[in-house]
Amino acid sequence: MANKCRDKKIVLASGVFDLLHLGHVRFLEEAKRQGGKDAELLVVIARDNTVEKMKGRKPVMSEDQRRALVESLKVVDEAVLGFEDFDIGDVIEKIKPDVIALGYDQASMEQQVREYVNTRNLDIKVLGIRKFEEDALHSSSKIRQKIVADFER
Amino acid sequence: MANKCRDKKIVLASGVFDLLHLGHVRFLEEAKRQGGKDAELLVVIARDNTVEKMKGRKPVMSEDQRRALVESLKVVDEAVLGFEDFDIGDVIEKIKPDVIALGYDQASMEQQVREYVNTRNLDIKVLGIRKFEEDALHSSSKIRQKIVADFER
Repeated sequence: MANKCRDKKIVLASGVFDLLHLGHVRFLEEAKRQGGKDAELLVVIARDNTVEKMKGRKPVMSEDQRRALVESLKVVDEAVLGFEDFDIGDVIEKIKPDVIALGYDQASMEQQVREYVNTRNLDIKVLGIRKFEEDALHSSSKIRQKIVADFER
Repeated sequence: MANKCRDKKIVLASGVFDLLHLGHVRFLEEAKRQGGKDAELLVVIARDNTVEKMKGRKPVMSEDQRRALVESLKVVDEAVLGFEDFDIGDVIEKIKPDVIALGYDQASMEQQVREYVNTRNLDIKVLGIRKFEEDALHSSSKIRQKIVADFER
C-alpha cells in the first residue's frame, strides 16, 4: 500500500478501539504526527475473534462498528479490519508502513514488531507511544468498570 | 455566529454524546447533509449538570471529554459546551443557525425548538432525524446495559 518513492509516510497503528475515548484519539494523533507532514494514518482494527482469543472476551462493540467509528475520526485516513488469523508480519508485508506506532498497552505486540523489523532489517520506524494522561477515563476497561459501579450503587 | 448573507449554512445539533457510537456519527452526518454543500456543523454538548437534572444521573464521560471526542469527528466543524443554565432559546439566539437537527430521542426538545422558532417566525429549518438502524448498539443506554449484563454473567 505504501510506496517508498513517495515523500508521504504511511503510519500504521492497530488496536481494539472498543468504547472509543479521548485516549484513543490522542494516541492516533501522536502516531500520525510521527510520520511528519502529510503522513497518512492507517488503522488496523482487531477482529472480534482475535480479541476474544487474546483477552478471553469479545469487545462490547462489534468489529464493524469499531472500524467505522475509528474511520470517522478526523485524524484517521483509513481503518481496516485485521486478518482473521492475526499475524503482525502479514500486516507489515501487506501495508509496508514507514512508521508503526504502538500504544502503552501493546507492549507484547511492540516486542513482536521490533523483532520482526530487526530480523529482516526493514526500514520501518517502530514507536511506543506513552499514555496520554488528562482524564481518568482514558481506558476502555476503566469505562466498563465505572458503568458497572454506577449500576451497582 | 452564522451570517445569513453567506451561502454557507450553519447546522446546529445538540446532545449528550456519552459513550460515542456509530448512531451518533450517522445522526451528525445526516444533520450536516441537510445544510447542503459546504454546510458547517456546530454541535452543542450538554453539560454534566444539565444531563443530571434531565436524566437523574451524570454521564459516564465528563463534559470535556465528550466535547473533545465529538470535535475529533470528521463531520464536526466545532463542538462547544452548552450553557450551565440550559435554555434552547439562548442557544438559538447565540448561534443563529440555518438548520436545527434533533435526534430521535429528542422529541421534547424538538417540540420546544419548533415552538420557539414558530412563535418568533424565525427563518430556521427544524428537522427531526430518524434513528439510524444497522447495529443493535446504536444507543448509549444499550451499551451500558450490555456492559452490565456481560459483567453479571
